Amino acid sequence: MLLEREKTIDNKIIDNIRSLSIDMITNAKSGHPGICLGAAPILYALYKDHINIDTNYPNYFNRDRFIMSAGHGSALLYSTLFFAGFPITLDDLKSFRQLDSITPGHPEYGKTPGVDMTTGPLGEGISSAVGIAMAERYLNAYFNDKKKDLINYYTYVLASDGDLMEGASYEACVLAGNYNLNKLIVLYDMNGVCLDGEVSKSTNENLTLRFSSINWNVITVENGDSYEEISKAIEEAKTETTKPTIIAIKTIIGKHSIKEGTSDVHGTPLTEEEVTELKNKLDIRDVPFTVFQNLLDEFRKNVNDRCFKLNDKFINEVENLDDEAKEVIDYLTSEDKSIDLKNLAYQLPEKMEEKGRVTSGKILSSIVTKYPYILGGSADLFKPTCTYVDEVGDFSKDNYKGKNIYYGVREHAMAAISNGLALCGIRPYASTFLAFSNFMFPSIRLACMMHLPITYIFTHDSISVGEDGPTHQPIEQLSQLRDMPNLEVFRPADVNEIIGAYKVIYSNKENPSAILLSRNTLPILNCTKTNEVVKGGYIARDFQTDKKAILISSGEELSKCIDIATKLQSKGIGIRVVSVPNINRFLSQDKEYIDEVLPVEIKKIVIEASNSKDWYKIIYNLNNVININEFGVSAPKDDVYKHFEFDIDSLQSKIEEIIK
Amino acid sequence: MLLEREKTIDNKIIDNIRSLSIDMITNAKSGHPGICLGAAPILYALYKDHINIDTNYPNYFNRDRFIMSAGHGSALLYSTLFFAGFPITLDDLKSFRQLDSITPGHPEYGKTPGVDMTTGPLGEGISSAVGIAMAERYLNAYFNDKKKDLINYYTYVLASDGDLMEGASYEACVLAGNYNLNKLIVLYDMNGVCLDGEVSKSTNENLTLRFSSINWNVITVENGDSYEEISKAIEEAKTETTKPTIIAIKTIIGKHSIKEGTSDVHGTPLTEEEVTELKNKLDIRDVPFTVFQNLLDEFRKNVNDRCFKLNDKFINEVENLDDEAKEVIDYLTSEDKSIDLKNLAYQLPEKMEEKGRVTSGKILSSIVTKYPYILGGSADLFKPTCTYVDEVGDFSKDNYKGKNIYYGVREHAMAAISNGLALCGIRPYASTFLAFSNFMFPSIRLACMMHLPITYIFTHDSISVGEDGPTHQPIEQLSQLRDMPNLEVFRPADVNEIIGAYKVIYSNKENPSAILLSRNTLPILNCTKTNEVVKGGYIARDFQTDKKAILISSGEELSKCIDIATKLQSKGIGIRVVSVPNINRFLSQDKEYIDEVLPVEIKKIVIEASNSKDWYKIIYNLNNVININEFGVSAPKDDVYKHFEFDIDSLQSKIEEIIK
Repeated sequence: MLLEREKTIDNKIIDNIRSLSIDMITNAKSGHPGICLGAAPILYALYKDHINIDTNYPNYFNRDRFIMSAGHGSALLYSTLFFAGFPITLDDLKSFRQLDSITPGHPEYGKTPGVDMTTGPLGEGISSAVGIAMAERYLNAYFNDKKKDLINYYTYVLASDGDLMEGASYEACVLAGNYNLNKLIVLYDMNGVCLDGEVSKSTNENLTLRFSSINWNVITVENGDSYEEISKAIEEAKTETTKPTIIAIKTIIGKHSIKEGTSDVHGTPLTEEEVTELKNKLDIRDVPFTVFQNLLDEFRKNVNDRCFKLNDKFINEVENLDDEAKEVIDYLTSEDKSIDLKNLAYQLPEKMEEKGRVTSGKILSSIVTKYPYILGGSADLFKPTCTYVDEVGDFSKDNYKGKNIYYGVREHAMAAISNGLALCGIRPYASTFLAFSNFMFPSIRLACMMHLPITYIFTHDSISVGEDGPTHQPIEQLSQLRDMPNLEVFRPADVNEIIGAYKVIYSNKENPSAILLSRNTLPILNCTKTNEVVKGGYIARDFQTDKKAILISSGEELSKCIDIATKLQSKGIGIRVVSVPNINRFLSQDKEYIDEVLPVEIKKIVIEASNSKDWYKIIYNLNNVININEFGVSAPKDDVYKHFEFDIDSLQSKIEEIIK
Repeated sequence: MLLEREKTIDNKIIDNIRSLSIDMITNAKSGHPGICLGAAPILYALYKDHINIDTNYPNYFNRDRFIMSAGHGSALLYSTLFFAGFPITLDDLKSFRQLDSITPGHPEYGKTPGVDMTTGPLGEGISSAVGIAMAERYLNAYFNDKKKDLINYYTYVLASDGDLMEGASYEACVLAGNYNLNKLIVLYDMNGVCLDGEVSKSTNENLTLRFSSINWNVITVENGDSYEEISKAIEEAKTETTKPTIIAIKTIIGKHSIKEGTSDVHGTPLTEEEVTELKNKLDIRDVPFTVFQNLLDEFRKNVNDRCFKLNDKFINEVENLDDEAKEVIDYLTSEDKSIDLKNLAYQLPEKMEEKGRVTSGKILSSIVTKYPYILGGSADLFKPTCTYVDEVGDFSKDNYKGKNIYYGVREHAMAAISNGLALCGIRPYASTFLAFSNFMFPSIRLACMMHLPITYIFTHDSISVGEDGPTHQPIEQLSQLRDMPNLEVFRPADVNEIIGAYKVIYSNKENPSAILLSRNTLPILNCTKTNEVVKGGYIARDFQTDKKAILISSGEELSKCIDIATKLQSKGIGIRVVSVPNINRFLSQDKEYIDEVLPVEIKKIVIEASNSKDWYKIIYNLNNVININEFGVSAPKDDVYKHFEFDIDSLQSKIEEIIK
């Protein structure tokens, strides 16, 4: 019943990794045996012969990255990392998928030494890997004048059939080909079986043609159980000088188990009998978590010999850099991603008004031209979002120093790539229209989960988009963004608050932020306060006579509230206007401050052109929230406002009605 | 200054359509001239020579569909539809992008005769067109026994460079190739310029290879200004018998204007001088909205001769069908999409418990096997979502009658294709895990906007997913779905409510619904009520002694509330439990009912394992909402519950604390 293939030491190690992975899954009563058995030789080949890491310093900055895009193969990843010598113990493997373990169900960035990204939702890993490879090209170019190839890591990905089906992977792979990311190497675990059975039920794709069509190098490994063939293919891929490489490795899902080649082995643990039979076949005694010390030693020796003191060497090189370069490395390797924009110079326009997006564009330019570790791009909306930065060049295969990234109409890949850039210490930004932010949600969710300090610049906020109509007028997106844990959402009212919002965003040590900006010209108010944005909300205009009501608002609607308050004042009705550019931040202030801004006994009315429900945390009367709960309409802005009774006169009537 | 090309009547009509489109944009002071000038010959060729329509009956059921995926070309579409003879007037064109006009900024389904889908967000149109082409194959096969080729329409798409960059288009096009959708013909307006400039800045893609790799037929038209070449290419595409066709038409953006070939002409109206110069070149007098009657007559005559009384012929054919087939046609062509599931038979399991997804699966099977106009599929999660239906076969190129659609891991395309199916009168469903529902949001948004009655089946609800960890545990998705206008969101607690939810969903005449289901075994409660789901919320268990507090809950947490209420009862604490499977529906009940269920004077506590903020519309005390505001953790379900203090004991303590 033993395997007939040659029992080289390599194969013995691979089989031990296989059995260990299976033991983890059996022990957890949950997990994905199929990929662990099928792809073990791939990870072994990579870690034994190729990937540059320092197991003593898992965060060694110039390490080759490995992204387990097929995150359900976590057991295989953890057991390989254990074998390779990362600080992961056998006990950790025994706690696979248990509370507070460092070996969670899918890889989680920051939890496990050697895990470079949180993966699980298919397509995300491979797409973010493109960002990681772009970061390498950018940083390589940036430092080259000072120290050639200071940064020159490879980015490796294990991708499954499912990863390559996801739209984001197509989007991102096109960019990888366009940008000649030759140090990106995708190891494609081509087993032809997905959860619902054969891939061919939904897919009839010629892989070589597909990747050739987007300027990739394609290598095929016929025998995915042969470590030697795989290692040779990776060696070949590393010699490629212009194109990214995909190595299509023909594997068999659940290899060597009785269910091999079927989808039954994808996501259900093997039975006791099946495990016994498998171990018999692999010639490993049927005792859970058996590890052969000689095999472990052999693997670790290999890794150590190849990667001897890589971190120390890197540190030495950094020490010889000039101060400017050192500072950049400090930032890139720091966990604290805050940047103090205290001295942000801002030239106010002559007329006391400016388009929200224009203000944002000026600020962004001043930041991007100053900090080498801030770069970003747009999903084909550089111009209308005002996020193109002059003087910093365009990122391209001929100019990796460029900082304007052309993503094309690929919002999802933009968000995923931003995750990749941020995982390399960069503080990226990404822009599109707010209405299209939902294309990015799957990747924004991962950014939130990984605490990545990305700035999303979403312009063309609200129904005030006007003529382009409902498809382009965000309604629910504001609320949906506010729903995301760890995402800070700013909806500033004018120049003063936009400056304040940027300062707060960049003062954050971690976590992503979204800034929502109007396409329209906004008056610059004399009552808005840059320094109060940090509190999320504050009194913009106070009562002058009696304390009749408080208007609470954000963004473009704030100036309308100020106007209405002034009008009501002239009627002797005292109105306070509270600006809330960031409601969650406001709600996290201490009770004393909140009560001071919003005294319990005074009537409160919210005006916001969206259907965000966050206000009901403040407003205990459904009638006192003036908002929009349906999709927009196509018409000039002022007509749209009138249609929704969001013009000043209608708002004023409604407010007066509520106050009565 | 006149054009040098031959002024055939065709070119004269094309130029008149061009000038008309430009007049609309100039008049609206807003719109996209580039595509209108560049792609006018494409639409002309299609409408003059190919597309089968009945301008007197724009909804003629077997019409060829046309999807303007590049929705920003709306002015061109409207002026072409006007020229073709649809009931659109010159006044309508003059109201382009104005309030209440039938010519909105981007095409809107249901607003304009001849517009087959709402488009604007790039990638959506072409992806939904795949669904429209699948509907044709399915319906063709369904009716073939009774009347060969009763349904045999072509699906035409105008796609821009941006459409083909979007990930969803890749996903959907793979499926089109896999399913041999030979009657899908994509007219690719290949002008090589997107909003930010040349496409080549982000894209280096060999189109022929790309589409060849996924089993498409590729035709190239070198001169995109030649109506004849385009028409010939479409003719050729129609003879293709197995593959979908993409016709790459080399056009020039803003053709004949001074800005032709540049991105400046993409989205900004031409200046007065530029318009004058253009019209001079086109030999059209510079009077806005000039239409040459002879050209209009010529075009309309062509269309009429070719499409004479198509609707009448179709109606005649239908009248000769048997009753069963007639009934299906009635449903497909009806605006009322409700289905009465009154007599839904449901076999309760022996033990009084069942997995939520299993209950759902049984109900779905009974529906899908019964109604020919209900079909759907899964994004590679048929098995875990329990949405594979036995006995109805798999949709494939060898069996278009099959009703299980294998989408592969392509959530976005699944949602877009579902829109396409629904646009053809079908009532489709689509399934994946709730955590991945956000991949589908851009298409769900359009379904909401178009009032399409799609059923989204999202299983693996909440942190109770357990071991698979935070990437697979939905937190914000519930709230985000509830944020979408026109989407009904059901989170039923057990078998009784799941049955109730399906009945309400299928009783809806329009609009999409989402049903959220646990992966876990749920007790079948004796207090839940199938017939009360229609109200969104109801009293599941009432006070027995004093009226101390009301627990409000949904989904999997309801049974916990019932248990806790029983425990507290034994301590003499009277608790009412209110089940709210659909909060928006509950809130839309009359005040009397709401007050009866939730009397103002009694303390209310919400328990829900998500961060949905909708509850604050009911609960005016932030402390009384027990929910989860951070991402989940990887561990067995009960450990996760304990971690979040959502186990029964912790919940009970919290509730007792609040009641105190």
